Amino acid sequence: MNRQHEHDKSEMDVLSSSECYQMLGARHIGRLGVVAELYPLIIPVNYALDRDVVVIRTAPGSTVARAEHANVTFQVDEMNFTNDSGWSVLLRGQAESLTAEHSEELIERTRATGVEPWAPGERNHWMRIIPHGISGRRITPGEDLQWQLGSAAYM
Amino acid sequence: MNRQHEHDKSEMDVLSSSECYQMLGARHIGRLGVVAELYPLIIPVNYALDRDVVVIRTAPGSTVARAEHANVTFQVDEMNFTNDSGWSVLLRGQAESLTAEHSEELIERTRATGVEPWAPGERNHWMRIIPHGISGRRITPGEDLQWQLGSAAYM
Repeated sequence: MNRQHEHDKSEMDVLSSSECYQMLGARHIGRLGVVAELYPLIIPVNYALDRDVVVIRTAPGSTVARAEHANVTFQVDEMNFTNDSGWSVLLRGQAESLTAEHSEELIERTRATGVEPWAPGERNHWMRIIPHGISGRRITPGEDLQWQLGSAAYM
Repeated sequence: MNRQHEHDKSEMDVLSSSECYQMLGARHIGRLGVVAELYPLIIPVNYALDRDVVVIRTAPGSTVARAEHANVTFQVDEMNFTNDSGWSVLLRGQAESLTAEHSEELIERTRATGVEPWAPGERNHWMRIIPHGISGRRITPGEDLQWQLGSAAYM
């Protein structure tokens, strides 16, 4: 059992904060976790990074827009289905809408991320996910290994 | 604008319930959405299907195990990063632990799904996600299209 335990540990690496952001920065589709309609919904969205802030663009009045000031998560992963290896990164943070009250510099920076709207005029609500923390794991192939990160896997 | 709108609609197909289950049945790694530690956590897990029930296996006392009787979600998707096409399926349901009080037939059926434990004796808590509903979308490549399903995308 001990040997098994050691084996598992060696197969699941904790990613550093900078590694997590490297993963985030290399992608442009992720999953927003948001509590709505009594469920922790998982919603695929395009995104971009403004430094350590995830920027997404949504429609006014949408579930995502209504997450304003709520605790949300943002997740990206890569899974190799043939050998169950891969990695997963989870950012926890607070959703904040971009408003005219933000500084011009921040508004410009947010827009400069280049997250494109779905259709002109229909996705003009910008949301920033202010990070509370980021964490992730990498799983390398192991014969007994399964994807079951658990909450502790991220923090 | 109308033309644009029609274009978008044609690019995002609602998946039928049976299509959603077909997608679910073809995979063995998905993401559990569970509210814990004040966030809607997104946790990659191995799973299998028992009819329309998602079966996962976790450690006693884990975040997942503590989701007992909570509303959870289970999500699978496939994303093509080169053209932003893909699909996403979300199941909403209630987490239920397998106990000795369940019928022998249900216990056997659950175990017969073949979700393997991570390590012997360490993942002996079986959870079933009793479905409340399932929904999904397929996105086909479109020049203006972005992943921004929103909550309505699933229901």
